[in-house]
Amino acid sequence: MIRKLLLAIGLIGFTTSTFAQTKLLTVEDAVSKGRTTLAPERLMQLQWIPQSNSFSFVTKKQGKEIVVIENATTQIQDSILSIEDFNSAWTNLNKNEKAMNRFPFITWVNTSAFRFSYSNAYYLFNLSNKTIKLLAKAPKEAEDLDFEPSTNRLAYTLLNNLFVNENGAVDANENEAAGQVISKKDMITKDGNSIVSYGKVVHRNEFGITKGTFFSTNGNKLAYYQLSEGMVSDYKLMNVSLNDTASKNLSKPTDFENLKYPMAGNKSHQANVWIYDFKKKRNLQVATTGDPEQYLTNICWSPDEEYLYIAVLNRDQNEMKLQMFDGTTGQFIKTLFTETHPKYVEPEKPMYFVKNDLSKFIWFSEKDGYNHLYLYNNKGDQLKQLTKGKMVVTDIITIDPKGAYLYYHATSTDGLNKFVYRLDLKSATSTCINKLEGQHTGLISEDGGYVLEQLTSASIPRRYLLMDAKGKEIGILFNSINPIREYKDCRIKLFSIPSTDKLASLNVRMILPADFDSTRKYPVLVYVYGGPHAQMITNSWLGGADLWLYYMAQQGYVIFTLDNRGSMNRGLEFENATFRNLGKLEIEDQLAGVNYLKSLKYVDPSRLGVYGWSFGGFMSTSLMTKTPDVFKVGVAGGPVIDWRMYEIMYTERYMDIPQNNPEGYHNADLTNYAKNLKGKLLLIHGTNDNVVLWQHTLTYIKKCVDEGVLIDYFVYPGHEHNVLGPDRVHLMRKITQYFKENL
Amino acid sequence: MIRKLLLAIGLIGFTTSTFAQTKLLTVEDAVSKGRTTLAPERLMQLQWIPQSNSFSFVTKKQGKEIVVIENATTQIQDSILSIEDFNSAWTNLNKNEKAMNRFPFITWVNTSAFRFSYSNAYYLFNLSNKTIKLLAKAPKEAEDLDFEPSTNRLAYTLLNNLFVNENGAVDANENEAAGQVISKKDMITKDGNSIVSYGKVVHRNEFGITKGTFFSTNGNKLAYYQLSEGMVSDYKLMNVSLNDTASKNLSKPTDFENLKYPMAGNKSHQANVWIYDFKKKRNLQVATTGDPEQYLTNICWSPDEEYLYIAVLNRDQNEMKLQMFDGTTGQFIKTLFTETHPKYVEPEKPMYFVKNDLSKFIWFSEKDGYNHLYLYNNKGDQLKQLTKGKMVVTDIITIDPKGAYLYYHATSTDGLNKFVYRLDLKSATSTCINKLEGQHTGLISEDGGYVLEQLTSASIPRRYLLMDAKGKEIGILFNSINPIREYKDCRIKLFSIPSTDKLASLNVRMILPADFDSTRKYPVLVYVYGGPHAQMITNSWLGGADLWLYYMAQQGYVIFTLDNRGSMNRGLEFENATFRNLGKLEIEDQLAGVNYLKSLKYVDPSRLGVYGWSFGGFMSTSLMTKTPDVFKVGVAGGPVIDWRMYEIMYTERYMDIPQNNPEGYHNADLTNYAKNLKGKLLLIHGTNDNVVLWQHTLTYIKKCVDEGVLIDYFVYPGHEHNVLGPDRVHLMRKITQYFKENL
Repeated sequence: MIRKLLLAIGLIGFTTSTFAQTKLLTVEDAVSKGRTTLAPERLMQLQWIPQSNSFSFVTKKQGKEIVVIENATTQIQDSILSIEDFNSAWTNLNKNEKAMNRFPFITWVNTSAFRFSYSNAYYLFNLSNKTIKLLAKAPKEAEDLDFEPSTNRLAYTLLNNLFVNENGAVDANENEAAGQVISKKDMITKDGNSIVSYGKVVHRNEFGITKGTFFSTNGNKLAYYQLSEGMVSDYKLMNVSLNDTASKNLSKPTDFENLKYPMAGNKSHQANVWIYDFKKKRNLQVATTGDPEQYLTNICWSPDEEYLYIAVLNRDQNEMKLQMFDGTTGQFIKTLFTETHPKYVEPEKPMYFVKNDLSKFIWFSEKDGYNHLYLYNNKGDQLKQLTKGKMVVTDIITIDPKGAYLYYHATSTDGLNKFVYRLDLKSATSTCINKLEGQHTGLISEDGGYVLEQLTSASIPRRYLLMDAKGKEIGILFNSINPIREYKDCRIKLFSIPSTDKLASLNVRMILPADFDSTRKYPVLVYVYGGPHAQMITNSWLGGADLWLYYMAQQGYVIFTLDNRGSMNRGLEFENATFRNLGKLEIEDQLAGVNYLKSLKYVDPSRLGVYGWSFGGFMSTSLMTKTPDVFKVGVAGGPVIDWRMYEIMYTERYMDIPQNNPEGYHNADLTNYAKNLKGKLLLIHGTNDNVVLWQHTLTYIKKCVDEGVLIDYFVYPGHEHNVLGPDRVHLMRKITQYFKENL
Repeated sequence: MIRKLLLAIGLIGFTTSTFAQTKLLTVEDAVSKGRTTLAPERLMQLQWIPQSNSFSFVTKKQGKEIVVIENATTQIQDSILSIEDFNSAWTNLNKNEKAMNRFPFITWVNTSAFRFSYSNAYYLFNLSNKTIKLLAKAPKEAEDLDFEPSTNRLAYTLLNNLFVNENGAVDANENEAAGQVISKKDMITKDGNSIVSYGKVVHRNEFGITKGTFFSTNGNKLAYYQLSEGMVSDYKLMNVSLNDTASKNLSKPTDFENLKYPMAGNKSHQANVWIYDFKKKRNLQVATTGDPEQYLTNICWSPDEEYLYIAVLNRDQNEMKLQMFDGTTGQFIKTLFTETHPKYVEPEKPMYFVKNDLSKFIWFSEKDGYNHLYLYNNKGDQLKQLTKGKMVVTDIITIDPKGAYLYYHATSTDGLNKFVYRLDLKSATSTCINKLEGQHTGLISEDGGYVLEQLTSASIPRRYLLMDAKGKEIGILFNSINPIREYKDCRIKLFSIPSTDKLASLNVRMILPADFDSTRKYPVLVYVYGGPHAQMITNSWLGGADLWLYYMAQQGYVIFTLDNRGSMNRGLEFENATFRNLGKLEIEDQLAGVNYLKSLKYVDPSRLGVYGWSFGGFMSTSLMTKTPDVFKVGVAGGPVIDWRMYEIMYTERYMDIPQNNPEGYHNADLTNYAKNLKGKLLLIHGTNDNVVLWQHTLTYIKKCVDEGVLIDYFVYPGHEHNVLGPDRVHLMRKITQYFKENL
């Protein structure tokens, strides 16, 4: 038994402010430790245990991991499982497996058992006798694993087909050591191939789609996507590989892999939904109708497994129909309701059925200008708007057992903070249960009586609290110390400035150089993203900044970031103001930031640099060429150059199709501005980028050559849309060098 | 009649040295005018007229081109055809064609008619009545045109098949406006496809092979290559194209074209030779035997059209058999002789039959250490070595009508000069007919009595002379003025230094900065090539240097170039000393140059830069990484990085196959040295390079990323092995900027 062990550890942090703050970060520190040892420490695997008022987390005791349980009522902690005991059970079951250094991610089933997965198999750990049992398994090469806990069914995909394993049974002739194995008895579909796949994510992860399989409530049915891509253009990705110089092997020409990439305005893929009925062992196709290029989103089963709901969005993305299908026959029953918008509608959350009254569900909609919750009955009638105000409801946490209170997260009006709210469903009144500003994330106990909360803010690295359901603090579970306490301090300021058209208040983050002296003149590095579905600035540790930006501040740069219109968590109008003209209003807002910078006496206006990736690469390339006298140096990674080369789902939402918006596309096509470039601009691209295709920067470089414009270029062979892994240190050293040499 | 008009124009040059030499070149000047207005002027289309002692050239009169004829005996010039008169005949024949501004390249048939080709058709201009007649034509898309003058047959290739047009006849249903047209009656082969082609160059232009069709002496037979590439690896070249921003068109993914590229040690293509007999209208395959991957080189007909000769080289390139085949049946008759060498033999010149005694032929061989001429009889017996000494015979010019004297070009021992020699075939004694040092090129009149000579040297921009057969000067035809006389002067020095091992004398070219001051310290730019079959330094205008190097000298750099061992025109041992170890001795020789530079008081040894392309890119990358403390800045264009990725013909000659020379390949694989890089290195590549594949630099960049090495990179989308055309200005500006910013 350990009582408040972790709180004690955490408090050590507060005693360390007497360290001399003289150390400087290196690029390597910032990149490779920025999310590990130099990030605020976490309380690992914090979660509630079903059927109890206890929660658990993983911590270390004498350097080895243990699982600790704490009772929320008594606040007594119990160290219930060591990694040694876990491993003893593990190696007993699997003689050939090695012991683990760390617990896999565990999920409590009840107070005496938890589930975990390892190497494509799912297991149950029984705490009472410390034994492990195999629940289900998939071949090592399987992807898209989806485990259904009430039936222990494991859906997975392999070679474009869908499979479901039950209870870990394998074919007698299965031999995983020999490589990829098809388990015929698991096969749900058989005709998958290179252009038709089953059970995989569709529509390139837009519309909140993150998976391709959807078990019904009790696991008796499985809805899944079918994706047909034969009609979509091919794009080849080059595989650059090093020769093995140690052996006598020969070289061979670079080979390619094929990607189906539908570009704006072109032929799109076609999705369908199928249902497999485990009792009847039968596949049937859901009878969606309409344009085969429409989007089938937010697939959701009724709690009784009788009906399947799909939010069907037209390709133009301005009309969403929430449709109901028979879960047994797949037949269309009715459209519950339709949402339209002159710009676009973007359903991202499936229906959420209200406990104790399954004829009602909650639906997210931005129809009043902010993402809010609405109560509907299953006929499709709106009964009530549940939440209101200039705040964005980001997600539902849970609903209490009686169905009286619903907990959700929502942002503050300025978008910087995220709070936990408690909604009284009957009166439709919400109460914020947090007191401090910052980014709060709540986990609610099964009985609705307690909240486990994680908090971070610009002044709080990371803090874990136990509270009651109304937000009254019961105790601090863990308080991370400042992970960069030994390093030179740079002041971080979060504030807002008005947009030039006075219509919006724009969030700004500045990091002042180490040893800041307001009588000096500093160069500025503007870090930009600027696209939808992202927010660079939050009231969280470092203001949401990457540690590399902090490193650059230590190196003597003022670091500046502004979330322009188009970015998220500020409401619909703030985001969709850029519709059909990506890169126009965003640039105007960024220039408001530049004007603010130029008003500061300590800023050297002749030494402004800008850096961004992806949409941020589009922005930095735009800023270097649309207003060529403003920035001296720019770096653009994986930038969109011409939206006609970007994919259908994202592009057409914001830009319509090129055929209907030639002016918008023309104005946003950065090759048209290449000739204006005056400063130093470095473009960077991963050669295997399957999001923003390599051809964007190759096209731009070609245009620069054609126009006689000197520009710099670098590629990361084999890397996709971002440079991750150990090579990220190289990337950030490259970018650092470029600014240091030229800014 | 114009007498010595051109000599007079030429002499103006000597009067211009009083111009103020203050102008500085720009990169644009150096690149775009370096081979036009800032190059020494040429006497255009200088040539002898058959059946006469007259020669002709094209010049301008009142801004318009005229053809001038001069009688070598009387030296009387006659302006015989204006461009207007030519165009009048031209537009009379082809009503739809526009008038030409310049004469096409003409070839005299006799004193009253010349041939020319235009847009894949061959024409005869009759001077007496000023009319033009079509001789033969090929479709606009045809390639590999080969015109046979005695029969007016025109061989060409289209869609991998071979065709021959006779007398311009076309199929009745042929309609060129509709695009690519197959003229069925012209078809010689029918089964050509993407992996089997006919009539095209084989073996990637190595072994002196520059074409794929070989008409017999009187045009009655046609030998041609068949190339099978199905067994060769595919390599994809990316087509990067700009979107048309003016229209509403959609974008589409980058597409690719396929290249068959056999890499060292891998499967090679297979060549065969076929013969088409025009009288019998019959194709037959020449019965070559042996390894299907052997090289079939130097195809040559006997003067009586009865026999076909092929120099057959084994894939290992160390055994050449000169073989004789029956020109009617294709059957093998005999091997005339065999040449072997422990390193390699490289036949590059076909047999040359002696006039008046067709049973004898001359053969080029390096067997005594220098390329010399040997007389053989048609049984294959060597009768006589015709030339000797430490000089390289580069080519035969002609043999006089009586077969007594043969004229050839040969280099001086130091390789810097090239002279015209007159060989008495009976006594095998050669006489150099030139007096001045420099690069001489001679054209011999049909009767052997006169020589038209072009001369250039470091002090002579370009001069054209008329001489008698023994070299006695009759008159100067044209003397180009110094094309850069108005620009600041930079002193060019040609000299030699000993190699470190004292075994060789290495030619050096230095260009000193403008306003050179020996008390100052200058940075140095080393320009390097260093590979076989090339020589950077000759006793010619600017010492053989590109005008951009002169520009860099004007910008304050000492420009230094050294022809290391491996380079041409210095004899066999000098060239093949690098065998199996490319990049080893070459680097040692370059470092001898560096040591020389460091011995100069006016050189700043901390500011050395190096630049090269192709083999020169291999050299500059090597110099930056094998001796990382020597050079501060390097630029490597289209560099070979790992010889295992380079093509079979070239690589295996110098390196053997990787399986048999793993150490040599390993030592030359530059990815092994990437980690050593200390200075700034910029790699540049044309994305469609079909000689040194793009994967060379992409592999190197990947290795640098893996090793944490910072390096710079740039690509020229769509460009092949060099950046030509208008974009070359961009390339040289980019390189200039890189040296200026970093050196």
